[in-house]
Parts: sequence; C-alpha cells; structure tokens
Amino acid sequence: MNSPISFELVSESGMARAGVLTTSHSTIETPMFMPVGTLATVKSMTPEDLEKMGARIILGNAYHLYIRPGHELIERMGGLHKFMNWSGSILTDSGGFQVMSLSQLRKISKDGVEFRSHIDGSKHFLSPEKSMEIQKALGSDIVMAFDECVKHPATKDEVEKSLDLTTDWEKRSRAYSLKPHQALFGILQGGMYPDLRKKHFQMMQDIPFDGWAIGGLSVGEPPAMMYEILDSTTPLLPKEKVRYLMGVGTPEDLIEGVRRGVDIFDCVMPTRNARNGTLFTSKGKIHIKNAKYAEDSSPLDENCDCYTCKNFSKSYLRHLFQSGEILGSRLNTLHNLHFYIQLMRRIREAILAKNFDEFRTTFYRSYLQNDQEEV
Amino acid sequence: MNSPISFELVSESGMARAGVLTTSHSTIETPMFMPVGTLATVKSMTPEDLEKMGARIILGNAYHLYIRPGHELIERMGGLHKFMNWSGSILTDSGGFQVMSLSQLRKISKDGVEFRSHIDGSKHFLSPEKSMEIQKALGSDIVMAFDECVKHPATKDEVEKSLDLTTDWEKRSRAYSLKPHQALFGILQGGMYPDLRKKHFQMMQDIPFDGWAIGGLSVGEPPAMMYEILDSTTPLLPKEKVRYLMGVGTPEDLIEGVRRGVDIFDCVMPTRNARNGTLFTSKGKIHIKNAKYAEDSSPLDENCDCYTCKNFSKSYLRHLFQSGEILGSRLNTLHNLHFYIQLMRRIREAILAKNFDEFRTTFYRSYLQNDQEEV
Repeated sequence: MNSPISFELVSESGMARAGVLTTSHSTIETPMFMPVGTLATVKSMTPEDLEKMGARIILGNAYHLYIRPGHELIERMGGLHKFMNWSGSILTDSGGFQVMSLSQLRKISKDGVEFRSHIDGSKHFLSPEKSMEIQKALGSDIVMAFDECVKHPATKDEVEKSLDLTTDWEKRSRAYSLKPHQALFGILQGGMYPDLRKKHFQMMQDIPFDGWAIGGLSVGEPPAMMYEILDSTTPLLPKEKVRYLMGVGTPEDLIEGVRRGVDIFDCVMPTRNARNGTLFTSKGKIHIKNAKYAEDSSPLDENCDCYTCKNFSKSYLRHLFQSGEILGSRLNTLHNLHFYIQLMRRIREAILAKNFDEFRTTFYRSYLQNDQEEV
Repeated sequence: MNSPISFELVSESGMARAGVLTTSHSTIETPMFMPVGTLATVKSMTPEDLEKMGARIILGNAYHLYIRPGHELIERMGGLHKFMNWSGSILTDSGGFQVMSLSQLRKISKDGVEFRSHIDGSKHFLSPEKSMEIQKALGSDIVMAFDECVKHPATKDEVEKSLDLTTDWEKRSRAYSLKPHQALFGILQGGMYPDLRKKHFQMMQDIPFDGWAIGGLSVGEPPAMMYEILDSTTPLLPKEKVRYLMGVGTPEDLIEGVRRGVDIFDCVMPTRNARNGTLFTSKGKIHIKNAKYAEDSSPLDENCDCYTCKNFSKSYLRHLFQSGEILGSRLNTLHNLHFYIQLMRRIREAILAKNFDEFRTTFYRSYLQNDQEEV
C-alpha cells in the first residue's frame, strides 16, 4: 500500500535520527516539535506567528473539535486547514485520551466508549469508526488510531487485558477508509511494563500503519521510568517509519526522546506554561512573576532571537503577567514555542554534524544551572 | 513660549480639518484616532501590530500606571515608550477621570483628591502637581492638565462651581515644569451647558496650552446633546492649535466630531467591543456570537484589508469567540482598530479633496443599513 506521507532518514548520531517527513501540506525536518492547537487555534498564536517561528506541523484534538464547533461544521467550512487558515500540516489525535481524562461517566464496551461532554454533559459515543469519521471530516494529514488509554498507575494485569481491546480498535481504525491524503499512525501501549510494550508491538506489527506512536507515557511516571520504556520500545520499531512520542514533554524529555530514536513530539507545556508565566530559557526555566524581575531590563534570554526577546524586558513581561494582560500570554507563548522549535532545530543540526551527545551535554550544562533557584 | 509639538493645518472642508501634528516621536496625520493603551499595552496588540495598521499615537492612563506597575518603576525602566517598546507618540491622561469613575472614598479639596485604589484599597492623593509628576515620569509626548470631572448629570450650579477649581488645577498643571519634549493640553469643562463651556474657555484662554481638549462629554448624554456642545465649543478654539475630543467614541461620533472641527480622538470602544464580540464593518456593527454566522465563510468585511479579514471567516471568528480563545480577542481587536484608523484615513482624504460632506453621506448610507438587524 502506498503511504500518503513519506519519511526519509537523513542522518543518525547514536540512536538519534534526523529525517524529512513530507505530507501533502508541508515538508517537516525532524526531529520536530508540534505546537498543540486544541480548538483549531494554538492559543494566542496566529498562523503567521507559527510560520515565522518555523512550525510546520501542529496538533488538533478530535475530541475538542467534535464537541465544538463540531467536525461536520468544520468539514462544511472546507476542513480544519482552511477553517483556521493553516497551510502547514496537521496531526489529529483520536480523542481516546481526552475521553478518559476529561469526560464524565464513561462506559467502555468492545464497541467503544460512551461518555458525557465536559462542556454541557450531553451523551456521546466514540468508537474507532466514529473517531476516524471525525478525523476524516477534519481532513488532518496524520490521523491517529483510536486506542484505549489505561489509567496510570495500572497493574500489569489491567494493562495486559487492555492490549486486546486496543489492538482490535486500532485494526478497526486501519480498516476505515480515510481521505487519500491522510496517513494513519498506530499507537503502542503497554504501560510501564517493557515486556507488555514488546508484546503490544508484536500484536500490532503487521497492521500497515504509516508511522508509529508511543502512547501512555508522560502520565505521571518519573522521567527515568519513561526513558526506560523508550529504551526498550524504540528499538522494536522499523527504522524507515517516523516515530512519534505522544504528549511529551519538557526540554529534557525531548532531548532524551531524540536520543532514543524519537522523531516527533507534541505537548501543551510550552503554551500552557507561557500563560502561567513559566518561561524556558537557555539557562533554565524562570517564573516571570518573581519579584526579582520587577526592574530587570534584560530580555528573557540573551541568546534568543524571538520577537519577545528582541523587543521587551523581563520587567515589562512581569508587568503584563501581573496585570493579567492578553499581550503577556501572547509574548510568552511566542517565546516558549520559539524556544522549543529552536531547540529541535539545534538538535537536528547536531545530529547532522554527528555530535548529538556533545550538544546534549552542553545544553544541560547551561539549562540546568537555574534549577536550584527557580524550578 | 516655544511649543514642543507643532500643528500644521493642511486643508479644510467646511469646519472639518486635515492637519499634521508633530511630536518628538512621530508625525501624525489628523484627523487621527488614538488606540487606548491603559496599562502600557493596547490590549492584545503588539507595537508591531499598531504600527502596521497606521497608528502613530496611543493613549496611556496615568491613574492605572501609577497604581501598577508605578510611574517611578517605569521611569527607572527608561520611560513608557521604552518600557512598552512603542516608537510612536503617547498621550497620557491626567488620572482625574479615573479617580472619579473607578476609585472609592474620594475626598475632594482645593489641594486635590484623596482616594482609594480600585485594586487594593490603599489610600492615595492626586493633585495637579502629583499628576504632572506621574506624567513627567512616564515621559509621554502630550500631557493632559489635571481637571475636575463632574458627575453626569449635574445641575448648572454644580458645574459652574467646579469651573473655578478645575481652572485653578489646570493653571497649577501648566506651572509645573515638564520634560522639554512634553506638550501640555488644557481641558475645557462646562458640562452640557453651552454658556458654561464658553465661560470656561474665557477663564482658560490665556493659559499657554499647546493644544485644547474638550472633556466631560460622552458620559451618558444622548449623541445629539454632545454634538450641540461641540457646535458651541469648537468655534471658540484657536484654529492653529490641535483639538482633542476626549473619550469619544462611535464611528458616527468621530465623523460628527471631525465635522465640527475636532482633530484627535480616543476611546476604548474599538478595543473593548472587540473583546466582547461586537465588530465594526462598512455595513454596520455585527455581533459575532450571533448564530447566523456559525457557517458564514465570508470575512467580517469584504471591503477591509486587515489581517483578520484577509485570512479568516466569520464562522472561525465566531468559534473563537464562543470558545473564549485569546486569538479571538486579538483578531477582533486588530480588525476594529484597523476599521477606526482606516475610517480616519478616509475622512482625511475626503477633507483634502474638499468633499467631506459627501463622504459622510456615503459612509452613513452603508454603515447604518444593519441598524435594524444588529445594533
């Protein structure tokens, strides 16, 4: 079967990979971070802002868009790309994670999940077929299979039991006929149990997915546990397919993910933290509300060339944050996303130069220096 | 006395005037609308956004900036222009109006006004000298005299009594030594009484102000009453000085103000309405939350070339508004401010072409057509 996307491996440095992912909407140099655009908007950003900072792919949420404004409305408006005027690529998640984390009164059966909307309490039913129908209507470039997200922590028994159901749901996702330009990624589950991760891959490996995602991580476990699972999971995956670590993470997580062979990431952290006043810099995280920034006329990060750092002081950003000004959310988000995307660009350059491990050491030396003081 | 600003009258069409106002920061073609930047930010806009749409002067609020982050902090950060990175001109109001409208427990004496902060209830005292000290620290290009804003409605007796106090306060404002680049505008009061407006001007006319403002309007009176006061006030003012109608207003108010000889305006209407989903178009106001826009794929205004209208549909803007998304506030504000500034630009062109009245008729024919339906 011809894949609607292509992935070319360009360089490796240890297990770290630099590649080029091509969809019908954009060419994406990997490793890449995908800003999260839950409700057909990356909060506070225009598409122009995202393009300028080098974002080439964003994530949309099937669950949220199904609830409002509705996938059928978006389809009638020409699809998600046109609706939000985004010319890059879009990956949509399946809604499975949100149904488990946000909605009330879930009832899981072999068919799917019955749940109530977190907005108005209305009753809905999500199944593999329904999730595919929603993502097809949205017209995303990369569609995620519908899986079961087990709560964390879960016993080995609970996780193992869910593998049959999630494998069945992912097979049914693949059987659904998407639009010709839409790729479908499979999601590997298995909780915090390396042998179940391996078992799940063995159950899934013959399903012809266009890429592989690692799900069920960054759900509250310590970073070391996540890295251990990655250590035992990424080596299973075919080298020629793109690899996506879902919902991850901190700058450290991105570096450790790439180090273990992951290509693409998404996380609300840079955007949500921005709105909460936590900002990423080359010297570590800072909390802009801290009184010591009240009269600090220096930029957030001397090494950053984003619009925020080129034009505004910490003092001004603190004032905007303390006053609850919209512009504060916007300038902070611009900076944090720029930081994430710039980090991925520098990681890629290091992989191309075959000195990823050196880059990693240098980055941590600078980034972790504020830890005592700030985090 | 040499004025730190210059005003050149370029053309007239009836009483409507086109001019050029020059401060040490920018050249401003009048008539001009000043976006309101209460807390050192025009809500949701970057300086870059404002420059792109043609804003050359914005308004800052002495009262708000005194309360937070403090005028002394802003002065230590290099002044308001540098603090907010705005390279155009800034006019600051005196705080007199906010003290009366926002704060609690006012106590007025000949010296000034004792009041409590609307943020934390702390006690403060504002006098002509204190207001000048604040505006001097902010470093605005145009400083407003400290006046007494009488409540509306007020009896003729109440208004007349306040003229002595406000004239004294404005004289004391003029006596204060500002920075060399700072101009000072006098404010005419007199409520809704044409003869008191005339009396106040006679009391004030010998004070060497760099420009004249008309205060105490748009405080709840019907538009016809405001226009009547303008009819009897603007003819009193010297032609060679710039005229500023404070806190006004609707697009109709701007046109009627210009028609009566006003040069500059400010109002929170375009920015506040934007955040509340009320949008100005060449065919009148629309409320974007209206269900009829849910699947309307057309732009807000076919005749508008702002970023919002060039890139997004009413359907998308409605979705952002309904979802409380920050981007909605931003795109709506961009549009409304662009509409106001574009309106002033077209008014100016009409004055230069000596056909202002024709422009006015044409504008109203289109603008008022939605009134039945929307407003």
